[in-house]
Amino acid sequence: MTTVIALGGNALVRPGERGTATEQRTNLRETCEALRPLLGGDLVVTHGNGPQVGNELVRQERSADEVPPLPLYLAVAQTQAEIGALIESELTAVAGRPVVGLITHVRVDEDDPAFGNPTKPVGPFYSDEEAHKREDDRGWAVREDAGRGWRRVVPSPQPLEVIELGAVRALLAAGTIVVACGGGGIPVSSRNGRLLGLDAVIDKDRVSALLAIDLGAERLVILTDVDAVYRGWGTNAQEELRELSADEAQLLLGELAAGSMRPKIEASVAFATATGREVLITSAANVAAALDGRSGTRVRP
Amino acid sequence: MTTVIALGGNALVRPGERGTATEQRTNLRETCEALRPLLGGDLVVTHGNGPQVGNELVRQERSADEVPPLPLYLAVAQTQAEIGALIESELTAVAGRPVVGLITHVRVDEDDPAFGNPTKPVGPFYSDEEAHKREDDRGWAVREDAGRGWRRVVPSPQPLEVIELGAVRALLAAGTIVVACGGGGIPVSSRNGRLLGLDAVIDKDRVSALLAIDLGAERLVILTDVDAVYRGWGTNAQEELRELSADEAQLLLGELAAGSMRPKIEASVAFATATGREVLITSAANVAAALDGRSGTRVRP
Repeated sequence: MTTVIALGGNALVRPGERGTATEQRTNLRETCEALRPLLGGDLVVTHGNGPQVGNELVRQERSADEVPPLPLYLAVAQTQAEIGALIESELTAVAGRPVVGLITHVRVDEDDPAFGNPTKPVGPFYSDEEAHKREDDRGWAVREDAGRGWRRVVPSPQPLEVIELGAVRALLAAGTIVVACGGGGIPVSSRNGRLLGLDAVIDKDRVSALLAIDLGAERLVILTDVDAVYRGWGTNAQEELRELSADEAQLLLGELAAGSMRPKIEASVAFATATGREVLITSAANVAAALDGRSGTRVRP
Repeated sequence: MTTVIALGGNALVRPGERGTATEQRTNLRETCEALRPLLGGDLVVTHGNGPQVGNELVRQERSADEVPPLPLYLAVAQTQAEIGALIESELTAVAGRPVVGLITHVRVDEDDPAFGNPTKPVGPFYSDEEAHKREDDRGWAVREDAGRGWRRVVPSPQPLEVIELGAVRALLAAGTIVVACGGGGIPVSSRNGRLLGLDAVIDKDRVSALLAIDLGAERLVILTDVDAVYRGWGTNAQEELRELSADEAQLLLGELAAGSMRPKIEASVAFATATGREVLITSAANVAAALDGRSGTRVRP
């Protein structure tokens, strides 16, 4: 049994935290304990990188007059190693077998419509003037963010291929737990056999579904901060959804506001439809109960 | 035939360069072309990270009032992904087969005498006051650097074990070129099965020798900026050394000033003595000639 599990949100950095190594380590210790029920089979761990890449982009900006900032795709790479090293350390202790972090590239299409419509805000806030200077000097797309200032926006294209898929397979076959596709993967196009890094970000839930499909995984588990998917979240009529068919999940997308649950549902529909297998959406604390069918949301084909 | 090749100096960043992604990529394109003669067999690429970790530490410091700096061992991790992604991209194009970058940890002994005597300067220069503030606030060891200001110094302990050795083997067996042990590896000790990151740096030539020995590699190639090892380098009597026995190399260490050639010779002696096999020390431009015995320095058992 091969499981792909996507770690998000609280698994790494919690509300009010700044993203120190100690905070991440403490949170991961708890998260990795919760993964125990999955350790009997082959396991690939993917993870987000929102707070970490945000911090790294601040670092790059604030020192730009002294050392050259790296392109966004390399900042994503940096967070794969930062977070991968932390996961490897904590998960090794729980699993008692090797855990290995792979630098992972994900191929996207340079003609993906997302490149014509960058929507994903990344990095620090800027004043109007600072933002437009960067627009002129560096070719950034910038957008005002709900009165809080200006931010860079980048494309979020569809993932097409995990470049290191064969390596993930080889490591699983060797009995290793693999950490891959961190932060959605390093977005690349392929030209003349050379990988070309692109300044974009890939949604980590979407790429987790792609990886799980291409690996032939039996199970995709998506961790989030709530125990299950809710209809009408935050309203008086909020309703926990314990089981959804892919069709029902697809319909639910029409009701959901843009937000972090949306890509989770999309990824679930993609995996369930492509493989005929189920996806679990739940919180770290509820993994064991969700596997037993006592918690979480199950998206079935 | 398995080769471990250690990339240093000019392979990534050249004198006068600032370490931009474009510079590194351009240099790597040339370096990777020079590796063609090694692509027929199993290949592991290791690399240094001096300029890159220097830049990253500046980034962490300059933004420290806004986002939390990461511990040094995670800055080392970040450079593994930065450089690993760049190598993977350029080397894939030349090799025509998969190249994979591994986040690599290297176990050291917390009782290594290096921890009592930190000697390796890392990161930016500080004023006397700034340096001593960091000494007090963060427990850093600091040292004045030849009138240029103060710098943090960290231990450089001996590498004992490449934690991801099994993963390197599995990937080689799957036909993959592996990038590993970047920047000497992330220094860790192992406590209760948990890897504990340490603020130290490991010499990348030393760890390359260890990795080559433990892999049972037939060959260790150490790239540097000069075509061979010289006695009396920079003097009128400078003499190119084309072949050295391990004993002769050991004697030469007594003549060499502290500098970047020293760990290369130490690593060569370690590999030749442990395996009965040869080490080549040469520049990227001379790899082909050195393999044919027409250039470079050969250290034999």
